[in-house]
Amino acid sequence: MVLLSGGLDSATVLAQAVHQGYACHALSVDYGQRHHAELAAAARVAQALGAAQHRVIHIDLTAFGGSALTDTSIAVPEQPTSDIPLTYVPARNTIMLSLALAWAEVLQAQHIFVGVNAVDYSGYPDCRPEYVAAFERMANLATKAAVEGNKLHLHAPLQYLSKAEIISRGVQLGVDYGLTVSCYQADTEGRACGVCDSCRLRRAGFEAAGIPDPTRYRTP
Amino acid sequence: MVLLSGGLDSATVLAQAVHQGYACHALSVDYGQRHHAELAAAARVAQALGAAQHRVIHIDLTAFGGSALTDTSIAVPEQPTSDIPLTYVPARNTIMLSLALAWAEVLQAQHIFVGVNAVDYSGYPDCRPEYVAAFERMANLATKAAVEGNKLHLHAPLQYLSKAEIISRGVQLGVDYGLTVSCYQADTEGRACGVCDSCRLRRAGFEAAGIPDPTRYRTP
Repeated sequence: MVLLSGGLDSATVLAQAVHQGYACHALSVDYGQRHHAELAAAARVAQALGAAQHRVIHIDLTAFGGSALTDTSIAVPEQPTSDIPLTYVPARNTIMLSLALAWAEVLQAQHIFVGVNAVDYSGYPDCRPEYVAAFERMANLATKAAVEGNKLHLHAPLQYLSKAEIISRGVQLGVDYGLTVSCYQADTEGRACGVCDSCRLRRAGFEAAGIPDPTRYRTP
Repeated sequence: MVLLSGGLDSATVLAQAVHQGYACHALSVDYGQRHHAELAAAARVAQALGAAQHRVIHIDLTAFGGSALTDTSIAVPEQPTSDIPLTYVPARNTIMLSLALAWAEVLQAQHIFVGVNAVDYSGYPDCRPEYVAAFERMANLATKAAVEGNKLHLHAPLQYLSKAEIISRGVQLGVDYGLTVSCYQADTEGRACGVCDSCRLRRAGFEAAGIPDPTRYRTP
């Protein structure tokens, strides 16, 4: 089970899991995100990397709001901040991992892969190693599968890598990052703004890795 | 924040939280459950008990299936079992609590109430005290609110009560159990089958409490 957003990190994770020989079931979540183009990217990436199947589940988090990604009245920040940014979506990773846990149990899958990262990231609390460990522990008390001895393993293989290291690994694994969309305010064709937090981290990653940036930007 | 299914337990929890003086925001989850009538019951209960607000969020767990409650090809068991029954929905409580966590964070609520119970229950792993504790711990690593010092408290006030004790408490608190629907295969008007696991536990609870059972049954 691979959580696949359509962005750079989760595409790399999928490539790695495929490379390790797993039959990969990719799950994307349509939660009403502003950058809806990432879902089309997820479908392209799943196909290109040879996922066994790709499924999109819908949950309308705009009903709660509270984030620049789920409330159109909150603008996406275009300057760096030292705080947790406005693009933080309350409990998003917990919701997504819970959905992955549900589908994993139905499929009798014991491995969930997620592309969270604690180095070049946006300061989101639900990307930290201690969070990942606590989710795995909770999950192993939650399910019938775990009670019956089929323990769940939550893999976060990018946890301690820099964005440049992630990109280098992905290129080695054959990921075409031109298929991915990271921008928080990508247009309907998936073209990036170049200035949001996610674009800045991505662009700096390609520069640091010495790899040409294949991202399609809206403005020159 | 109170998770409100429309059944007996969560109605009691809502009554208790209201009694304790909390402004209660009730959340129900339409996950494609067979006993959809419980959602209408949840709305009636929220209104009757004076919830500040009641909201229903939709997520289609029939896309995953794997339970008698989300897959119409699996019949609801009508005989007791010593195993975890077929009505177990993979990761259901984890998904619901994750959604409650999200809305709680947006509302800046620090208390989530849930009606899980470890005595007269169906053997679901995600009703056990160790699960509740692990979810709370994970939640306090997951959110911006927790990182900023606003810890989340997950309350499971029915945890160690028998069904009869829950009913007695609810009656003292003024709960009208005639408004609630527990049956896993309730008809569209909320009338109960009387023979599923949930009906059996409920009926035995009223008997043990010595309180007349207000449940509307389909068959005499």
